[in-house]
Amino acid sequence: MPFADRAAFRAALDAAPEPDAAALAAAEARQATLTKPAGALGALEGLAVWWCGWRGVARGRLARPQIAVFAADHGVAARGVSAFPAAVTAQMVTNFRAGGAAINQLAETLGARLDVRDVGVGRPTADFTAAPAMDEAGFLEALSAGWDAVDPEADLFIPGEMGIGNTTAAAALAGALFGGAPGDWAGRGTGVDGDGLARKRAALEAAAATHGAALSDPLEALRRVGGRELAAIAGAVAAARARRIPVILDGFIATAAAGALAKARPGALDHCRAGHRSAEAGHGRALAALGLEPLLDLGLRLGEGSGGATAALLLKAALDAHDGMATFAEAGVADG
Amino acid sequence: MPFADRAAFRAALDAAPEPDAAALAAAEARQATLTKPAGALGALEGLAVWWCGWRGVARGRLARPQIAVFAADHGVAARGVSAFPAAVTAQMVTNFRAGGAAINQLAETLGARLDVRDVGVGRPTADFTAAPAMDEAGFLEALSAGWDAVDPEADLFIPGEMGIGNTTAAAALAGALFGGAPGDWAGRGTGVDGDGLARKRAALEAAAATHGAALSDPLEALRRVGGRELAAIAGAVAAARARRIPVILDGFIATAAAGALAKARPGALDHCRAGHRSAEAGHGRALAALGLEPLLDLGLRLGEGSGGATAALLLKAALDAHDGMATFAEAGVADG
Repeated sequence: MPFADRAAFRAALDAAPEPDAAALAAAEARQATLTKPAGALGALEGLAVWWCGWRGVARGRLARPQIAVFAADHGVAARGVSAFPAAVTAQMVTNFRAGGAAINQLAETLGARLDVRDVGVGRPTADFTAAPAMDEAGFLEALSAGWDAVDPEADLFIPGEMGIGNTTAAAALAGALFGGAPGDWAGRGTGVDGDGLARKRAALEAAAATHGAALSDPLEALRRVGGRELAAIAGAVAAARARRIPVILDGFIATAAAGALAKARPGALDHCRAGHRSAEAGHGRALAALGLEPLLDLGLRLGEGSGGATAALLLKAALDAHDGMATFAEAGVADG
Repeated sequence: MPFADRAAFRAALDAAPEPDAAALAAAEARQATLTKPAGALGALEGLAVWWCGWRGVARGRLARPQIAVFAADHGVAARGVSAFPAAVTAQMVTNFRAGGAAINQLAETLGARLDVRDVGVGRPTADFTAAPAMDEAGFLEALSAGWDAVDPEADLFIPGEMGIGNTTAAAALAGALFGGAPGDWAGRGTGVDGDGLARKRAALEAAAATHGAALSDPLEALRRVGGRELAAIAGAVAAARARRIPVILDGFIATAAAGALAKARPGALDHCRAGHRSAEAGHGRALAALGLEPLLDLGLRLGEGSGGATAALLLKAALDAHDGMATFAEAGVADG
């Protein structure tokens, strides 16, 4: 286990590397020579340059993308905050392993390795409306499991999650990190009805009252109102940074989990791009609070890493163009 | 040549088939059984169902996408409306054929066949500020070339274009089709400077004055102020419809060209989706006028079909999920 105590995790965050300035400059310079008007590939150009900077290369292609889906159960699910019963977490893990879920297909479309990590299925966190979701040992275990899940040889990492009740955890965490009325972070999740939404709001307000000022510390908030898969995502995103592996974030849950890192250490998400803005009410607000601009806005609200994997197709396209296009000189095309 | 006169083309438009209602219903029914909350894949679900309806299947995958880039020169380019010299059209055709352009790379990313069709390189249209861009024979030839370019076995068609000066033609056409002050449709194109933009506006106003009420007929507007590659795109989009091949449109030029069909026959673009909203000023307005919702909004402004090809990756992902996911029953997952 890489983190024996929270100080060790904070030290890992503090040791986060920066992108390679020379590679960034070389990638930008290459962009300017390719046979297209300057800037004509819009956000795809910046996406390619960003990836090159973190990988330390002037050009390259996606060769080893990794998706990791972290699954866990939530004590708060017993409060009727989800449209699905808690048993669905375990059923969907079986579905992931059998290849039947959306993320299995999207991973194949992308050509990505897909890992499914059980970090607490059938071992729910405590109901955080009344007590911290995890004790310190459980929190460190989840952070560590996330850290260890990242393939050191990956050239892109996409964190996904599965956990009935986890939009409630993400909403509680987002409220702690980004402020505002706790209940306002409640959304429909997987499609909860009006009564369920009211129970979700009530749970968020109860959690805020129970934990109070303790939520002002981002990592402590992750322990108290997050979930094991959210903590694992935070650990994984930190591990990717340590290895200069760019990250494409998925939806509300992944963004809230990663947000705890950004609040714990400014710049901790510089290696991350937002894959999409989901239909979940709080996601757009969370992205704005983190200064992340989503690549896609398709009304997705599935989780599993599905939006991240879909957005990664844009990175693949951007890198293929960046690497494979001819320069004006090579092609004998007049440069404006 | 499929069209000996304009009536023959209009007849082809009038004979346009509708999607297969039974396939649409079957695809929608399948979506509802897949292991995800209903609607959780957002716009990707509708995209998959739309494609299935046109292909007449309940499920399927992209197996034979085709991109065709139509290239032609424009008399109006002599008026200094572009940031690039007219010679670049031919140079870029050479680049397409050598595999060095963005669209070559994006076609490979998508797994699409790429055809490059010279429909008027080195054979510029007349300067439409003073006279119709094409005579009737030239117009029918371009429409026919577009029609013939579509692979009848394709399961997706993406029209692209290359033609220095063609954002000016597209702007003139958009003004004719969608109204408003002619000069307001001028945008930066490949990056024209302020003086060039003023020349572009002046050209658009001159064209409107020269052609007057003749521009109120959509196909006549396409002949008078369009270009050979725009007419070819219109022919190709109509051919795709006749063969029930779904189309993903690229940017401003493809949208304006296809827009002539929509204005000539309501519903003519029901088999089309807008790949993206480009950075070109008039594109968002044209999409709104046509009721098309773009899949991407990445500030692209390259043309060549690049935005259409990039957006087609989303269709590929949507179909992979639609076809490959397990149903709730297959996976033994509780359905809410």
